[in-house]
Amino acid sequence: MEKASAGDPWEELRALPMGREVEITDADGRRWIGTVIPHHELSGDRVLQLKLASGYNVGLRIGPGVSYRLRSSPTPAPVDVEHPARSDPGAARGDPVALLTTGGTIASRVDYETGGVRPVRTETELLEFYPDLAADGPVHALPVLDRLSENIVPEDWPVLAEAVRGSFVSGSRGVVIAHGTDTLGFTAAALSYLLPRLPGPVVLVGAQRSPDRPSSDGRSNLAAAVRLARSHEIGEVVVVMHAGLSDDRFAIHRGTRVRKMHSTRRDAFHSPTDGPLGYIEEREIRWVRAPRAPHPGPPSVDGPLDPNGALLWFYPGLAPAQAEAFAHDRRGIILAGTGLGHVGEAHLDWIRRAMDRGAVVGMTTQCLAGAVDPYVYATGRDLVREGVTYLGDMLPETAYVKLLWALGHERDGNRVRRRLVTPIAGDLSERRPVEAFD
Amino acid sequence: MEKASAGDPWEELRALPMGREVEITDADGRRWIGTVIPHHELSGDRVLQLKLASGYNVGLRIGPGVSYRLRSSPTPAPVDVEHPARSDPGAARGDPVALLTTGGTIASRVDYETGGVRPVRTETELLEFYPDLAADGPVHALPVLDRLSENIVPEDWPVLAEAVRGSFVSGSRGVVIAHGTDTLGFTAAALSYLLPRLPGPVVLVGAQRSPDRPSSDGRSNLAAAVRLARSHEIGEVVVVMHAGLSDDRFAIHRGTRVRKMHSTRRDAFHSPTDGPLGYIEEREIRWVRAPRAPHPGPPSVDGPLDPNGALLWFYPGLAPAQAEAFAHDRRGIILAGTGLGHVGEAHLDWIRRAMDRGAVVGMTTQCLAGAVDPYVYATGRDLVREGVTYLGDMLPETAYVKLLWALGHERDGNRVRRRLVTPIAGDLSERRPVEAFD
Repeated sequence: MEKASAGDPWEELRALPMGREVEITDADGRRWIGTVIPHHELSGDRVLQLKLASGYNVGLRIGPGVSYRLRSSPTPAPVDVEHPARSDPGAARGDPVALLTTGGTIASRVDYETGGVRPVRTETELLEFYPDLAADGPVHALPVLDRLSENIVPEDWPVLAEAVRGSFVSGSRGVVIAHGTDTLGFTAAALSYLLPRLPGPVVLVGAQRSPDRPSSDGRSNLAAAVRLARSHEIGEVVVVMHAGLSDDRFAIHRGTRVRKMHSTRRDAFHSPTDGPLGYIEEREIRWVRAPRAPHPGPPSVDGPLDPNGALLWFYPGLAPAQAEAFAHDRRGIILAGTGLGHVGEAHLDWIRRAMDRGAVVGMTTQCLAGAVDPYVYATGRDLVREGVTYLGDMLPETAYVKLLWALGHERDGNRVRRRLVTPIAGDLSERRPVEAFD
Repeated sequence: MEKASAGDPWEELRALPMGREVEITDADGRRWIGTVIPHHELSGDRVLQLKLASGYNVGLRIGPGVSYRLRSSPTPAPVDVEHPARSDPGAARGDPVALLTTGGTIASRVDYETGGVRPVRTETELLEFYPDLAADGPVHALPVLDRLSENIVPEDWPVLAEAVRGSFVSGSRGVVIAHGTDTLGFTAAALSYLLPRLPGPVVLVGAQRSPDRPSSDGRSNLAAAVRLARSHEIGEVVVVMHAGLSDDRFAIHRGTRVRKMHSTRRDAFHSPTDGPLGYIEEREIRWVRAPRAPHPGPPSVDGPLDPNGALLWFYPGLAPAQAEAFAHDRRGIILAGTGLGHVGEAHLDWIRRAMDRGAVVGMTTQCLAGAVDPYVYATGRDLVREGVTYLGDMLPETAYVKLLWALGHERDGNRVRRRLVTPIAGDLSERRPVEAFD
């Protein structure tokens, strides 16, 4: 402890820098230990906001009878943080990790005027929420985008890929990307195709609750993501998020296999067909399946993308004219069909016309888990006869992202199709799962 | 045993009616007991096809040295089957259950010419596969549709609802509907809205493997469905399918909450937000939550539907012009947005134009589990300001079916919206789940 004080310490406490660790004892002898976080507009005067070690925030009214002690940790600087490891002072210093920010809940705070959430506008603000970030080694923070993830578009993906490449080239051993959860899965798939050979981990991470909410998962998700990014163990794009309701178990999902499967739960992310690639539990990284090894040498970005593709989900009552209008000017269309990859027979005509004008039509399943197979029912055989390409157990969203990437690389439809059906970045099981049919 | 024979019994065996139970002992003394099922085109001459009690089928080559004994069960007649309960001769005779067939895998067989599966064309063929169906009481079978479920359209739903109504009026205590799994969830939702007051259970059931495959789930699913339909315990539309890989545990899903979540697994059906309503285990029906009680009196069909609605899934790169072309002539559009119910801000303009011409726009989440909430992020607040209706934790597919039903009942947009947001048939939790936010 550096300092203790009694009496009315408000003027001293309000002057503390964000991220300062402090121990507060109130007039009734109750004690809190936490780090100072920004004052809320609505929390009123003489209220100190603390983030506790549990991840919960409290607002403490400061007046006569409250005492405090400053604890020994210095304030983390906003960039290139290098403070000594607090929790484990003997630990070796880790390699530098890049933290690319894009906006989203993990970098948002409650706006007390609207009751909603707004993006954190500065890197300083972000690091105020995550004072532990650099406990095990340096973290170089770099804002790349600043928006909610529903506003991220395919044109943003190469920008992000370039920022990843740049981070590795400038010495990072791993890269963490803080991203809104809404379209995090799409971005993870895009980076998997755009960055085929990686010298280290690229870990996408998000939060389902903003960092100034008591139950925020941002702090623990980010710590787990940084831990994995520092591990050197893998050379692929993954997503790290809560694996369950516990605060110390995180799933590692392959970038091409992951999907947000709940609107609010902290364990919203799943790999529907295969399950996660591994877990992070109590600082241990445990692999369920072998991840891809790092690839020596600097990475390159395998662009461009052609955004001229579409993803269409079939349903009973979808009018063929509607489907045709939706896809009429697209070079490629991924269908999310029913079951093993079916659409109503009334759709064969527009699909034939799309093929005739040179479009590529790929089939996935709206079940989201399991593979498509055109050879079980007459509908599938008819669709294959028209030239529809069946895409195994690829997620519809991943197949769509892969289509944009394939269209960006090839003019010829057959070559686009060949790229689609070739397994890349673990997106597609080569063999049909044994349990599929007897 | 009625009869035993030795020598070369082929001519006698080939003349046995389908469904006859027989015990075969081959030249090496191995013994099989099963019921005679139709001969396969490719299994060759002198091969008897038997369905064993395990559910597996075998093809036995019949020649000199094979002996057989006919067992005592009579052949089930194709309609209004009334044979005595074989497994439990002392059991009370159950009330009559109607079995409505619509096509799909549960009523399909392997076509050995193509290697694919084709629908069973006659009721006789169906009952040949399911000789145990009427073991506990009479089953009145009635073909209503004959097609793979990807070809079922909204116009079929009222036809099926009328057949359910007719079955109850003519004395059935419960109704089972055998349906292809691909769009079974849509049909279950539609019947939930079309049949608001039911005097007994309406149980949709399907199979993920055709009944002549060794691992077919059709037989056990159908038996569980008939058991529930006979129970008198509920007055709502449910789906019964395998709950796991075991052969004797079945989930009971509410018709408005269920979705096919795997293309091939037998336990493909899930209720993503709430979990199943109950289970059937070893002939016991166990409820997790209280089902709706039967409603006295004959049911009526609460039609019509207006098929002039659409379901559109948002994704990064969806062009606003594409979305507008898709929905331009629709009276209503359900969006499957990201996360809490978002689309990119570039889509606000066409949504405003759709609202201006009187269309209803409803928001659900493509996460499939959890609720939407427009008041957390600016995007949601903007969409509400434009007039988009947030639909809680309704599944996108259920919301789309409900939209067609609401459009069929109301001309005025506000009245359509009011129907959409009113919980019906358990489709929508009235309160936001506690776990959603702190």
